[in-house]
Amino acid sequence: MNDAWLPEPAFAAVRAQRCVVRGDGPLAATVRAELGPGGDSGDVVFEIDPAGGPAESYVVGRSGGVTTVRAADGSGLLYGFFDVVRRGEAAFAADFPHVRHQPVMRRRMLDHWDNVDVHPVMGQVERGYAGGSIFWRAGKLHDDLDRVSRYARLIAAAGINAVAVNNVNVSGAAVRLLTDRLGDVAALADRFRPYGIRTHLSVSFASPVILGGLATADPLDPDVVAWWAETAAAVYERIPDFGGFVVKADSEGQPGPFRYGRDHADGANLLAGALAPHGGVVHWRAFVYNHRQDWRDRATDRARAAHDHFAPLDGRFRDNVVLQVKYGPIDFQAREPVSPVILAMPSTRLAVEFQVTQEYTGQQKHACYLGAQWSELLAWDRVAEVAAAGDGLVAVSNVGDDDYWTGHPLAQANLYAFGRLAWNPSTDPAAILDEWADLTFGPGFREPIHEILDDSWRVYESYTAPLGVGFMVRPHHHYGPDVDGYEYTPWGTYHFADRDGVGVDRTRGTGTGFTGQYPKPWQDVYDDLATCPDELLLFFHHVPYDHVLKSGVTVIQHIYDSHFAGAESVERMRAAWRRAALPDAALHRRVADLLDEQVRSAVEWRDQVNTYFHRKSGFPDAQGRRIH
Amino acid sequence: MNDAWLPEPAFAAVRAQRCVVRGDGPLAATVRAELGPGGDSGDVVFEIDPAGGPAESYVVGRSGGVTTVRAADGSGLLYGFFDVVRRGEAAFAADFPHVRHQPVMRRRMLDHWDNVDVHPVMGQVERGYAGGSIFWRAGKLHDDLDRVSRYARLIAAAGINAVAVNNVNVSGAAVRLLTDRLGDVAALADRFRPYGIRTHLSVSFASPVILGGLATADPLDPDVVAWWAETAAAVYERIPDFGGFVVKADSEGQPGPFRYGRDHADGANLLAGALAPHGGVVHWRAFVYNHRQDWRDRATDRARAAHDHFAPLDGRFRDNVVLQVKYGPIDFQAREPVSPVILAMPSTRLAVEFQVTQEYTGQQKHACYLGAQWSELLAWDRVAEVAAAGDGLVAVSNVGDDDYWTGHPLAQANLYAFGRLAWNPSTDPAAILDEWADLTFGPGFREPIHEILDDSWRVYESYTAPLGVGFMVRPHHHYGPDVDGYEYTPWGTYHFADRDGVGVDRTRGTGTGFTGQYPKPWQDVYDDLATCPDELLLFFHHVPYDHVLKSGVTVIQHIYDSHFAGAESVERMRAAWRRAALPDAALHRRVADLLDEQVRSAVEWRDQVNTYFHRKSGFPDAQGRRIH
Repeated sequence: MNDAWLPEPAFAAVRAQRCVVRGDGPLAATVRAELGPGGDSGDVVFEIDPAGGPAESYVVGRSGGVTTVRAADGSGLLYGFFDVVRRGEAAFAADFPHVRHQPVMRRRMLDHWDNVDVHPVMGQVERGYAGGSIFWRAGKLHDDLDRVSRYARLIAAAGINAVAVNNVNVSGAAVRLLTDRLGDVAALADRFRPYGIRTHLSVSFASPVILGGLATADPLDPDVVAWWAETAAAVYERIPDFGGFVVKADSEGQPGPFRYGRDHADGANLLAGALAPHGGVVHWRAFVYNHRQDWRDRATDRARAAHDHFAPLDGRFRDNVVLQVKYGPIDFQAREPVSPVILAMPSTRLAVEFQVTQEYTGQQKHACYLGAQWSELLAWDRVAEVAAAGDGLVAVSNVGDDDYWTGHPLAQANLYAFGRLAWNPSTDPAAILDEWADLTFGPGFREPIHEILDDSWRVYESYTAPLGVGFMVRPHHHYGPDVDGYEYTPWGTYHFADRDGVGVDRTRGTGTGFTGQYPKPWQDVYDDLATCPDELLLFFHHVPYDHVLKSGVTVIQHIYDSHFAGAESVERMRAAWRRAALPDAALHRRVADLLDEQVRSAVEWRDQVNTYFHRKSGFPDAQGRRIH
Repeated sequence: MNDAWLPEPAFAAVRAQRCVVRGDGPLAATVRAELGPGGDSGDVVFEIDPAGGPAESYVVGRSGGVTTVRAADGSGLLYGFFDVVRRGEAAFAADFPHVRHQPVMRRRMLDHWDNVDVHPVMGQVERGYAGGSIFWRAGKLHDDLDRVSRYARLIAAAGINAVAVNNVNVSGAAVRLLTDRLGDVAALADRFRPYGIRTHLSVSFASPVILGGLATADPLDPDVVAWWAETAAAVYERIPDFGGFVVKADSEGQPGPFRYGRDHADGANLLAGALAPHGGVVHWRAFVYNHRQDWRDRATDRARAAHDHFAPLDGRFRDNVVLQVKYGPIDFQAREPVSPVILAMPSTRLAVEFQVTQEYTGQQKHACYLGAQWSELLAWDRVAEVAAAGDGLVAVSNVGDDDYWTGHPLAQANLYAFGRLAWNPSTDPAAILDEWADLTFGPGFREPIHEILDDSWRVYESYTAPLGVGFMVRPHHHYGPDVDGYEYTPWGTYHFADRDGVGVDRTRGTGTGFTGQYPKPWQDVYDDLATCPDELLLFFHHVPYDHVLKSGVTVIQHIYDSHFAGAESVERMRAAWRRAALPDAALHRRVADLLDEQVRSAVEWRDQVNTYFHRKSGFPDAQGRRIH
């Protein structure tokens, strides 16, 4: 498999030095193994500082011709090592001041939606666009765990410190990972441990029934409480640094506390209680909504669901419950407002969830740099602050057994950027691309990477669903356009386009009242057509096609313009890639082929969306371009 | 499994007689087995008449207190036996004149789209709505072939004399049925033979490559010709009464002669040449079209495809080639015009293909009596005459391993009606229902059956796609509404609805010219808005929503009216069934549950179609009913 951002040349500078590694433990051993046997003194010194410091932190600097990394712990040592790698020759060329680096987010986590059994519809990886699972293969642990070690090394270099190894939709053999298949989890934890990564497990809320043979999984039942306590103890017996459980409960068919007349605090606290003695946490997902909605019913609003369910529970969760909240109120769309839940639960430990796997952003066939999106989301109001004060950031991984790990080689940048933004959410996403391009391709390729990726998320947005209205994807697989694909379905993802206008009225005055879930000023900002940002207009308002945007053009003309421009931008991205003289011909070809598909798909999106709205609205394109 | 139209009581009258069966051969043995040991004389005499008569015919009558069946051959004897069964007590109550009965269609055939291997998407039966295959199970011949014998008996009683035992999409193990898996086909043929049914096999055009190891399947290559000749000879060696091959070539991804620069006459004649020495035929499907069409391209018209491909080949096919033509130019829709191919190929032996499996007519969850549709189609112009002069009628079976054979117990009526209409296409479909109801339920249940089924096809039409425009089903599975589901796809099934109007212009003057494929007067009838029948209006014309139909209402008001009325009709069908005092409680419950689903689905169709067109057109409902 491809070396991603850790090819041999990236290590040339540091390995040319005389290196010393001081310290004990598995992570010091990892750094030592990276550098080979050293002497008692050297040009570079890596050491665990007996004086300590914040967990995972390190101080790096150079003075007197010696570069030093003094780390608070083994993790800090490893992160300091990769810091030196990123600096390349600059780490040894001249003195630079000693500065402490520490992660802003305490947990920087990847969730794998990898199925243990091959799912009849979703396959080995749910919403996976890079081949099979690197962990599981047809019901069994994968034979080749060296690849897991390589994966651990890669994501550790990006700053990741937690991985959940199975899908949140837990069924079949996956349920049993918690008990008689625990050895598989332990084997994976053995691979992650040398890289400072804790292993987490998605579990079924119904486990006491399925595995324990109990008659109930009622969270207030004493036998259930005892079963979870014993089961968690057995997990920690086997995996002392086990991270905890991930749970999707009462969502899209998964079991949960509602069945027993209990609420989500009851459910989450049950598991948290079992994990607390061992230092574990439960990541409890807030993705709970009615997926059997009646499209005729305009009062039900899926966007409201997480806040309606969880905000009233603020203060009731144990402190080792992490409420894991998707960044937006719907589902990982290219454009959504930030979920109001994030600002609504000051007494709850939150984690914000992103989606590195590109379910709704081109499925790793389209180049779409999500670092730009995440950076913007993290900069909104107190999002980064809430996540940092809570548990951190979680993202669904985009990795599979594909030779390039991520299918689209440029999708590696998303995986890398997620880790780096979780380390420090104020990092400029363009600077992350510089780092990633230098490491991955060596010096000299920043320019085409920026040309292609810098705006690629906004480009993707421009040729897909307009102005924040979302969805419009083909049902089930979610690739490519289908404007009405979800319009009359139970999923709660509507645009309500008619011959006069389009958009969802979520205002307090005349709509679903979703805006009222935001604190001031946002509830007013979004309620008011005069202040609602253009890019979210149709998420919050139903407007006539000739409504004039702040940009000065009408909604319908914006739809036409953005879709023509988006498809043209993809052609420019393709041209930029074709000009780039990558030395790796196979990689160049893979990306070139994918950009061909992206051009085709963007044209399809352009034509379907434009034709749909032209047929419906009757407005001609002001520029007279061809609409079918 | 359920006895369908052959429950024990149906035989009570004939078995109460003293019966004599005279004649030899497997079919006489079958009749003898039905009646038990007889004497030398009796009240009923079944005999094969040494004087003969048309194949499969029989003379039945009663005089002097003796009912006689004199058959031209073993098949006629069996059909005469079932005739006597249908007559019940009336066959023995009084004299009735001796009349010869003979089938109008020489071949009355069921095609099974049963997969040998379980297809990852389509399952064990493609477009099957009644469980798994009765022939195949997970790659192997089914253990229980007694069920095949029961099936053979049932369909023989309806007049069927040919069955193709595997899907026309031939892949995997199914390809090998032709050679090393031929024993499976022979085993099935052994089950069909006692009921006068010949066994046919769907084959892959690429067989010489896949099975024979040849480098080509070019129909003009001498090695290919020789391979097919040897292979066919081996089939007849094993199954002397083998019927022949069924081929779907160059269609939806199946291999065919186009690959070698040959046409369909070359391809069909290749197989026909191999079968001719043994008396077999090749059923060559005319379902050939471009399924990778560009929806932007309004010149390509899927409706034209079969005629464009095949009409120019008229006269070039060998006389044991049967061109198997779907009744309509698109694909088994509830309403289509008759395929122009049927009137366009006087020098070709044609078979007309229906679909008993309800892919587009409610998938055996909706009660939809297709006898009414087929009767109407067969009565149009020379359809029945062409089929009778050619090869006959073929239909895709609706049978699976479901306890009721057909999922919906009332869908048994479709299977029965197909056989009876193939025997005599001028039979009144309501009279067929009488027969079917009497046999199936005993006397006294005709009324609810007529209440529910008589108009059920038109009811289905009324709540689904309007005025012949077709499709509007959910992609892939084809159940339930999705007005735009296929609108922007490569499948060539469009309605072109915009804010002003709807329909496909297929006229010669301004449209695709499809009407020109019909002879006069039809090309003019369909071209002219003044003469085009209402029910086909949107198949042939794109009209404004306020276009006034011959019925006097506008297109948009017709859409609203028919959809409200259709859903109401289904509620009346359900009420009629609830009132019916069927003695078989399990069957009554099964149908009642399915009618609940039909009500739900009809309401969903009504609301989606009405809402779609209301949003698009802006026209209010003249009656002010609720549209969402």
